[in-house]
This record gives sequence, structure tokens and C-alpha cells, in this order.
Amino acid sequence: MPEPTLARLSHYLRCLRQLAAEGVQTVSSAAMEARLSIPSTQIRKDLSHFGEFGRPGIGYDVQHLLEHLTEIMRLDREQRAVIVGAGNLGSALLGYGGFVNSPFRIVGIFDNNFSKIGRPLWNLEIQDVHRLPELNKELGADIGIVAVPAAAAQEAADMLVEAGVRAILNFAPAVINVPKDIAVRDVDVTREMEILSFHIKRADDAEEAE
Amino acid sequence: MPEPTLARLSHYLRCLRQLAAEGVQTVSSAAMEARLSIPSTQIRKDLSHFGEFGRPGIGYDVQHLLEHLTEIMRLDREQRAVIVGAGNLGSALLGYGGFVNSPFRIVGIFDNNFSKIGRPLWNLEIQDVHRLPELNKELGADIGIVAVPAAAAQEAADMLVEAGVRAILNFAPAVINVPKDIAVRDVDVTREMEILSFHIKRADDAEEAE
Repeated sequence: MPEPTLARLSHYLRCLRQLAAEGVQTVSSAAMEARLSIPSTQIRKDLSHFGEFGRPGIGYDVQHLLEHLTEIMRLDREQRAVIVGAGNLGSALLGYGGFVNSPFRIVGIFDNNFSKIGRPLWNLEIQDVHRLPELNKELGADIGIVAVPAAAAQEAADMLVEAGVRAILNFAPAVINVPKDIAVRDVDVTREMEILSFHIKRADDAEEAE
Repeated sequence: MPEPTLARLSHYLRCLRQLAAEGVQTVSSAAMEARLSIPSTQIRKDLSHFGEFGRPGIGYDVQHLLEHLTEIMRLDREQRAVIVGAGNLGSALLGYGGFVNSPFRIVGIFDNNFSKIGRPLWNLEIQDVHRLPELNKELGADIGIVAVPAAAAQEAADMLVEAGVRAILNFAPAVINVPKDIAVRDVDVTREMEILSFHIKRADDAEEAE
């Protein structure tokens, strides 16, 4: 399944959660299109992959679809994550309010800076990154978050792989190499800014052409 | 041009910068494929959109292509950005080292919390978000960064639109509505974690099926 489909699943899930919170019981793909700006044909195609077909004239059962997608995405159980990098970004992620009503729980934060190791950060104590493989036997994190500078990213990823994580969220502006059974998603702020820059340029060009 | 193409342009740019730094003068699409894990056919197709065709047996001129893509993406001039939200995330973004060698410069940070307004943060002073439209006449930021909680995201976006930004990078886990001539990119940490969760689930399923 291609990455854009996965990203859309996450959008559907958020939309369904909101509908459920509003007490809505059924939703048509057209109504989802209005909320998500994703074409209803695309929505129906994506959901049909999982055996979900809306009833003509009625739509999808919100609660059922919500539960099904939650299970498909493994969001029906607690998911533990550890952060490598206790700098500004690591601290911001650890304090991130967005995980409160999610299955994600940050169970450890690691750094290689001796002046940081042992210090408290939010509800955790910063641990030595060299102890990550050993400590993760207890912590049981499946997800590792790389929040170190680019130059330290590969080392952080290697340590996470050794610790047995199965997926990595990489915030460092660097390509990390991991065994192919480990999933990686990059969050690259500079890249996002570059893409926005291109949009501005294109709008400028269109204006000039008028 | 679809979003995935834009994201790839940014990848090409990073690859070309690295090649230039290594003193490499020409690069084939096959060599770029090896570095980026993007099929060479895709690379050639993307670059041909901009009139760039590698010479058979030689490839692309690294310096020329680098300059051309830099200009296409409007990265050949300083680009000013302001941040709304002086919490952990806003602070992490302001202190983000990744912008040092980029055209992006954060020229202002704003908040609506009176206990924060007027306080220094890194090299700036936190300003009242209600003064953003007025102050941006001087600051001249084209890009706005939303780094507030979900509930405050739309208000922050409205203020940025009023201030005249042309593109928004949204870190809040919320959909923001803006006029259609304003580009928006969402960075949603929870969504990224959900996608990783799905990858883990799929690997589990594949293992069970064996």
C-alpha cells in the first residue's frame, strides 16, 4: 500500500473520531469529502481495500468504521516509543500534548551528553543512549524517535535498531540507513519550508504571466 | 505539479548539494537513484519537466542543475518566516539548527499569553500575536509557522493570513482553513506515528501468515 494511502487512512480516522464525538451515526463518502477535501471516489476506493463499502443512500457506519480502521492501524493498543535526543526538539516532543488521547506513550528519552544524563525532563529522567538496547528490554518500545542533529542521526538510528525498535520517526535532516524490515518516516522541516517556497514561486510566476 | 513531485525536488536538491560539496561535477540518474532510492526513470521524468536532460553516458551537470533547481524553488533569496506559538515547539523551531545554511530566517515569534509577551526567546523577543498584522509590515515574512495547540490553530492561521503571509507550515494537529491562494503544509506528528503503527501491524500480519 502506497504511503499517500496510509496518510489518507489517518485523515479518515481523525474525521471519524470527530463524527463519533458529534454523535453522528452514519456518514456518506460525499460528506467525508466535504470535511476532508479528498474526492469521494478516492475515499470509497481506499476503504474498499479493507472490505468497507458504504450502503447506498446511507453511507458508512461511523462507529464500525472507526473501530475497524483503529484495529487495522494497530491503534487499539498502547504503543511505546523512546526518543533519542534530549535537546529542544526532544523536549518539545516529550511535552507534546497531541499524544494525550492517542495510543502513543513516550517511555524513555536518551542522550549522549553527560551533562544531560540523569537530569529530569518532564516526567522522565534522561538516560545514557549507550544503555538504550539494555533498557529497552524493560521499556518495550517499538517506535524510536530520532531528535538529534544531522551528524548524529545515523548513530542514533543504529542504537534504536540494536534496541529492537521496529519503526523510526526521523526528525534529523539526514537520510538514515536501517535494515529493510524497519519502517522509517522522515519529518523534515527544511524540506517542508522548501516546498512552501516553491508554491510561493509558482504563484509569483502565475501573477507575472497575467 | 503534485505534492510528491515537490517533495522529490527537495530530495534532489539535497543530493546535489552533497555531490557539489564532494566535488562531483556530473551525475547520472542511476547514481542519483543509488543515493536516493528513487527510480532513475522517475528522476529523469521529474527533471525533464524543467527542461533538464542528462547527456547520455555523462549525466547531469551538478552545479548547473543545483543552481537551476535552487532558482525554481525560490531558494536563491532570503525567505522570512514568523512563528505563532512560543511554547516548547515554537522554541525548538526557533532554535532549530537546520536553518543555518538555508535561505529561511525566522524573524519573529508571537504568542497570546501575556506572561510570555515581552520575554526574550533565543535571539528574539516574544511579541503579542494581535500585533502580528501590524508588525509584519516591517518584518516582511512570507511564511507563517503555526506552533500552537489544536484549539488555537485556526485563530493563529487567521492572524497569519491577515498579516499577509503566502504560505503556512502547520504543526497543530488540526485542519486549518485559509484562502485558496495560500499554500499550507501540515506536519502532524501523531499522523506520522499512526502510519508507523500501521507498518508494524502489517509486518506482524505478514509474519503470522508465514
